[in-house]
Amino acid sequence: MEQVKEKVLKDPVHNYIRVRDPFIWRLINTRVFQRLRRIRQLGTSFLTFHGAEHSRFTHSLGAYETMRKVVEHFMRNYGWTPGERTRLLALAAALLHDIGHGPFSHAVEPVTGQRHEGWTVRLLREEAELRAVLDDVDDRFAEDVAGVITGETDFPLLHQLITGQLDVDRMDYLLRDALYTGVAYGQFELERLIRVMIPGRAEVLVRPSGRLTVEQYMLARYFMYAQVYLHPTTVGSDLLVRKIVERAKMLRREGVLKDVPPLWDSWMSGLEDPGELSIEAFLGMDDAVFLAGLPGWERSGDPILSDLAGRLLHRRLFESVPVAEWTPEVERLVREAFVQAGLDPDSYAGFVHVSIDGSGNREPVWLSDGGGKWVNFFEQSVLLRNLPPIAVKRLYFPGDLVESGGDRAASLRKLLVSLSHEG
Amino acid sequence: MEQVKEKVLKDPVHNYIRVRDPFIWRLINTRVFQRLRRIRQLGTSFLTFHGAEHSRFTHSLGAYETMRKVVEHFMRNYGWTPGERTRLLALAAALLHDIGHGPFSHAVEPVTGQRHEGWTVRLLREEAELRAVLDDVDDRFAEDVAGVITGETDFPLLHQLITGQLDVDRMDYLLRDALYTGVAYGQFELERLIRVMIPGRAEVLVRPSGRLTVEQYMLARYFMYAQVYLHPTTVGSDLLVRKIVERAKMLRREGVLKDVPPLWDSWMSGLEDPGELSIEAFLGMDDAVFLAGLPGWERSGDPILSDLAGRLLHRRLFESVPVAEWTPEVERLVREAFVQAGLDPDSYAGFVHVSIDGSGNREPVWLSDGGGKWVNFFEQSVLLRNLPPIAVKRLYFPGDLVESGGDRAASLRKLLVSLSHEG
Amino acid sequence: MEQVKEKVLKDPVHNYIRVRDPFIWRLINTRVFQRLRRIRQLGTSFLTFHGAEHSRFTHSLGAYETMRKVVEHFMRNYGWTPGERTRLLALAAALLHDIGHGPFSHAVEPVTGQRHEGWTVRLLREEAELRAVLDDVDDRFAEDVAGVITGETDFPLLHQLITGQLDVDRMDYLLRDALYTGVAYGQFELERLIRVMIPGRAEVLVRPSGRLTVEQYMLARYFMYAQVYLHPTTVGSDLLVRKIVERAKMLRREGVLKDVPPLWDSWMSGLEDPGELSIEAFLGMDDAVFLAGLPGWERSGDPILSDLAGRLLHRRLFESVPVAEWTPEVERLVREAFVQAGLDPDSYAGFVHVSIDGSGNREPVWLSDGGGKWVNFFEQSVLLRNLPPIAVKRLYFPGDLVESGGDRAASLRKLLVSLSHEG
Amino acid sequence: MEQVKEKVLKDPVHNYIRVRDPFIWRLINTRVFQRLRRIRQLGTSFLTFHGAEHSRFTHSLGAYETMRKVVEHFMRNYGWTPGERTRLLALAAALLHDIGHGPFSHAVEPVTGQRHEGWTVRLLREEAELRAVLDDVDDRFAEDVAGVITGETDFPLLHQLITGQLDVDRMDYLLRDALYTGVAYGQFELERLIRVMIPGRAEVLVRPSGRLTVEQYMLARYFMYAQVYLHPTTVGSDLLVRKIVERAKMLRREGVLKDVPPLWDSWMSGLEDPGELSIEAFLGMDDAVFLAGLPGWERSGDPILSDLAGRLLHRRLFESVPVAEWTPEVERLVREAFVQAGLDPDSYAGFVHVSIDGSGNREPVWLSDGGGKWVNFFEQSVLLRNLPPIAVKRLYFPGDLVESGGDRAASLRKLLVSLSHEG
Repeated sequence: MEQVKEKVLKDPVHNYIRVRDPFIWRLINTRVFQRLRRIRQLGTSFLTFHGAEHSRFTHSLGAYETMRKVVEHFMRNYGWTPGERTRLLALAAALLHDIGHGPFSHAVEPVTGQRHEGWTVRLLREEAELRAVLDDVDDRFAEDVAGVITGETDFPLLHQLITGQLDVDRMDYLLRDALYTGVAYGQFELERLIRVMIPGRAEVLVRPSGRLTVEQYMLARYFMYAQVYLHPTTVGSDLLVRKIVERAKMLRREGVLKDVPPLWDSWMSGLEDPGELSIEAFLGMDDAVFLAGLPGWERSGDPILSDLAGRLLHRRLFESVPVAEWTPEVERLVREAFVQAGLDPDSYAGFVHVSIDGSGNREPVWLSDGGGKWVNFFEQSVLLRNLPPIAVKRLYFPGDLVESGGDRAASLRKLLVSLSHEG
Repeated sequence: MEQVKEKVLKDPVHNYIRVRDPFIWRLINTRVFQRLRRIRQLGTSFLTFHGAEHSRFTHSLGAYETMRKVVEHFMRNYGWTPGERTRLLALAAALLHDIGHGPFSHAVEPVTGQRHEGWTVRLLREEAELRAVLDDVDDRFAEDVAGVITGETDFPLLHQLITGQLDVDRMDYLLRDALYTGVAYGQFELERLIRVMIPGRAEVLVRPSGRLTVEQYMLARYFMYAQVYLHPTTVGSDLLVRKIVERAKMLRREGVLKDVPPLWDSWMSGLEDPGELSIEAFLGMDDAVFLAGLPGWERSGDPILSDLAGRLLHRRLFESVPVAEWTPEVERLVREAFVQAGLDPDSYAGFVHVSIDGSGNREPVWLSDGGGKWVNFFEQSVLLRNLPPIAVKRLYFPGDLVESGGDRAASLRKLLVSLSHEG
Repeated sequence: MEQVKEKVLKDPVHNYIRVRDPFIWRLINTRVFQRLRRIRQLGTSFLTFHGAEHSRFTHSLGAYETMRKVVEHFMRNYGWTPGERTRLLALAAALLHDIGHGPFSHAVEPVTGQRHEGWTVRLLREEAELRAVLDDVDDRFAEDVAGVITGETDFPLLHQLITGQLDVDRMDYLLRDALYTGVAYGQFELERLIRVMIPGRAEVLVRPSGRLTVEQYMLARYFMYAQVYLHPTTVGSDLLVRKIVERAKMLRREGVLKDVPPLWDSWMSGLEDPGELSIEAFLGMDDAVFLAGLPGWERSGDPILSDLAGRLLHRRLFESVPVAEWTPEVERLVREAFVQAGLDPDSYAGFVHVSIDGSGNREPVWLSDGGGKWVNFFEQSVLLRNLPPIAVKRLYFPGDLVESGGDRAASLRKLLVSLSHEG
Repeated sequence: MEQVKEKVLKDPVHNYIRVRDPFIWRLINTRVFQRLRRIRQLGTSFLTFHGAEHSRFTHSLGAYETMRKVVEHFMRNYGWTPGERTRLLALAAALLHDIGHGPFSHAVEPVTGQRHEGWTVRLLREEAELRAVLDDVDDRFAEDVAGVITGETDFPLLHQLITGQLDVDRMDYLLRDALYTGVAYGQFELERLIRVMIPGRAEVLVRPSGRLTVEQYMLARYFMYAQVYLHPTTVGSDLLVRKIVERAKMLRREGVLKDVPPLWDSWMSGLEDPGELSIEAFLGMDDAVFLAGLPGWERSGDPILSDLAGRLLHRRLFESVPVAEWTPEVERLVREAFVQAGLDPDSYAGFVHVSIDGSGNREPVWLSDGGGKWVNFFEQSVLLRNLPPIAVKRLYFPGDLVESGGDRAASLRKLLVSLSHEG
């Protein structure tokens, strides 16, 4: 009598995560999924917004819960009958879509040259414990989950719900990141958004009355990118992570990096030849292992690696100036000035240009006309059509070293001031 | 013109943390304080409440902000004139009160035999960078901050605000832990509570009209202990942390533990003789370093340490049964049954008895009678006087191993069932 | 395709009120139910907590929505199969339980001598439009709804859900009144409370793991009574409402009250002989009609009625002093002093003694022991057993008139001071 | 000791309204201000969003509190020294800016031909009790408050804070209306918006870092208009209010309206000649008096007035169809079809065209360039420049009567269908 039929997990965003299928419970308990507790959802953003210490574990549960609600809505209000296997496919894909993330993922990906989606698929196919659970449905299931995530799939509607404009991934992360950072920017009407969604054959459609709700949701995305995800301070701390990895990689290659912790060593050998990175080595690296390696780098003999590691550990971040035009000529001048100031430009000068479309890459949002036809909402919505791009175009540098650099750094200081005025 | 006079940090609990003193900003930027980003506020609670991944860094900022509000209220509404030095003393003590915490602090403290308060004081006195900032006020300041925190102080009112019944530490953590776990239990009327507080000479007093507000606040504490802090699952994961440390310590002492990571090694040598633990070794250990050490223990040759480390890493926690009476006789029976089942009782049988007073150790809450006298509110409040103790009294064990233990574990299984029925 | 199967109403407490039965929609659209928009949920509380301007209409929708969730939980998690008619009975009873309320209901009831429950039943039986909708289920349905509300019923479990310790009425009003007043006191874990409820044969049972949740919910009730519902200012404004009605009633009886608005006149004739109050006359009186009558009373020739009406209209409320013992002797002294001060004690001296049990009248809360038996949770919970009563025992009076009363009011002022000191 | 120096009022939006000036407290206690408790903030919106039952009283307190925060920010962070009189001027103007509202104000204004701003000024100048309080500052103060509200003032910065793009009126109502309706659309970062505001000489300026915050705030306005303020159902219930007043006015002029309640009668005589409406007659009409009059109209002999009054009282609202082009020819056809259907087009056919600029009438938002110059943010922000207008262009009619109108209404039904298809 005490036992109720669903398990629940308390959640600050959705109040409860409701697990009604033992299969989902088993997926949650795999070590691949539990590992996400050690990968922060927003990488180094916690150095800008101190509250944002949450992990991909909590987000993945939230994406699952959102999918559960979408599926329930489709079934209750539109007579959608996906069948049991397809329903589990939707839930599993939502739950597992982020398992391929590495430490400070978006920060590190440019160094490894590998995107997390690839690792998600590989783990689905090859990681023994996870695969065993998935195979209990049937031996095509793991492949179908991978397909729903990548888009090479017979279930295009499910793929849209994972990575389309109206996907459960974004719905959860906007609300979750807004809550944990403490900003109101990511708020939107989740329940209403779900209510205006209609299951099409291959795409999500939106009821005519849902126009405003979709606009609000797209704007929540726009504001979160502009105010949180692409915050200049975070772009700089992400850069710092890359500079550390690149410096350590170089030193290791040259054989001068001593006492590399085993988990780092396995992972860094994979950096040299990504194809050779084993599943164990990949899973062995996470935010905790990364952070725990920093004190060692700080004490390494290399002054640059030592300095960079200390910066991340103790939050002594790079400063930055906006740059209007980053031409080869400008780059040459910058490198020269850094060298003259006694600062290695490879480790200390970092130009970053990130730019995203305010409207989410212009993928269509299909709006029902109420009469059986669909139009792309972008063609109707003046607001969405005009969402501006959000760009960061800045040169990062160690402000303290530049400041204390004396005469040698004088021309660098002058250059930074002039760049700033143009930027 | 762009520069405003106060810095603000966005915070999900208080909206903004307001920093108006450059001195406070410098304290925040010390490595001792930044380290708190790597110590979780609620130890292993995130294994029970997945949202509770926040750090002592965020809580310490929140305690500071609460103190700032209390001081402002005292000054505005009661003409309190602490003077600049005392005002900074209050703020600094609130900010720094938790710097002495180690990894999964409350979990590990019983093993190290050292309480975090002692380390807080030692760091205030001896850690060079922090001390330099504090000495900029004057060379008695560090000692005065320590005194306010420990209570051996000429500023008893400030000490009450740090660790009394109505202290800024508890005010922040109840609200913060409630938000991050997602439960409503810790909610109380913070602004109203501050408003009913009166600065006495050596103690915090409460206005007569504040009775209910104090009761609600004390109940928030009661519910958070009962529902979150002493959750049986968390008590069990804390126990697991201790079992790992104890096993690793024993193996290291016997010289059979290989490849101990340097930061662990320094810290564990301190476990042998706490007095010898250096500041560097203490600061070197945090949650990240602890977690990053687990894969190594998992791969160590010792099957017990390997199993325990894997349990924490992949959340394969102990189960438990309530125990009515834990007598030497019961203990003997339990140990025998574990041995018979092939399970080392030192590592696998864990009896835990935690008990706290529902009313916060009966310290008085001074209520003004409106006519210049004070009474202890506990003598008036039927509700507070009767807040029951909250106790956990359970035997923890690896449910899976007991289940799969075959005939050898039969009598252990029987014993656990009988204990459970009595408990 | 545009049409989804459920209607929703946006709600600040539950986010959405979900209406899936056309029958419920028809009940909402009756004029009896729509009238609740003109009856405030908290009577004159808005004069104390300015935000509390919400109506019984919103609360009734919220009680319905809570019942919908409870029923869904019982059906999903406990295999409860009430059948369609019983399900509608539960929903209709929750929706309609408050239709019998009059203006400033709890304030006025002592004057009319009629409780709202009686009127609810009468409307269910006799109001033509409402009855027609109910009869569409079957001709016993109206009577069954009445029975569920009063308790003389074959559906005791449903009655418990309407007016037991764990009822949907209280669940909604605690959260709603907390939101609109702006206090945190009424917050509790609604979804969790519903989850721990088990459908018994004639009573609601609670799972063993729900102990804390029930305690928190009972305390939310305790705090809301102590801080909001029995706020001395509100008790005083409620008294003022009664004084106005009593004075107007007396003047009308004496034939000196001119230009009585028709809706007031019909209603007041009912006050003389409650049995004669027609349904139309009852429904014709609401908060708006009551308030719209005040300017007329203010301009009436009677100085007392004029003064009282102006006090309510412009919020010039009575003051009060606590009274330790209200004996016939004290009453005599008070009346004499009022007369001497030139103030009619019938209209200007108001002693009020309200007292409620902190635990909700000691009705049992049935806690499952997990083994098929139930115990009364009050016998287990130290906290609930000791919830103190909440009492208001005060003498109300027009502070301004007493103050400006010159020598004649001197002894009254003295008496009030002495009462206050004893109280 | 019990007495603290500020009074506070609990508020669901701002937590506390803080009153530190006895002068403000006296303004709150005037009957002109207390009357705002009987004027709903959102007119008939509660018939669309049931939670929106809040009054202009709560909003006015919120506008005051927001002004208090803005002034405090200007003084603390920008060394603004307005002087005591100017500070009180800002607070009083914020508090009193809405006192001139009548019943269902925006709905009724087109009938009376008088805008609430005019009445606000008249009350400030002429209402005796209010004027006496204002004169206590000095005898120019009332006029200065009026000037700040209308804009004919020597305090242009204060006027901007009352009715500019970044004004405390809008800041409060967006958050308050969002809370009470239960929608997320009106949320924005209030504290951050205040922080980025700079006091200019005659205008509010915005720090460069405040771009996003301003955009979010302007979008909150856009969404609230689109989703709440111009909701077609509310536009229709506002129309119904006007139709009632117009019908009653006509009947009264013709002398066929009997038993007009005195407060209505005084007010309606003012409708005939607005210049003659006395202050007492104006103040005597509020939402309560309006609603309390409806049952009388419902029972009046006039079938049209009776029907209209019943519609508002029992929420039997008009339906509507979108209209693409409302030409004289279309109007003629519509009127003819109504007449043919036996429905008086003056009372039953209501074409409404409301249109607002999405960007708040294109008034500039001045953005600091960080170097002492200001640019109009509209020229920079692609988002704001492209905010589309929000328009309602619909024909309203009594759907039930049209439906039940038999053959006579056939051509009307056909016309409505054809209009709807074009619209």
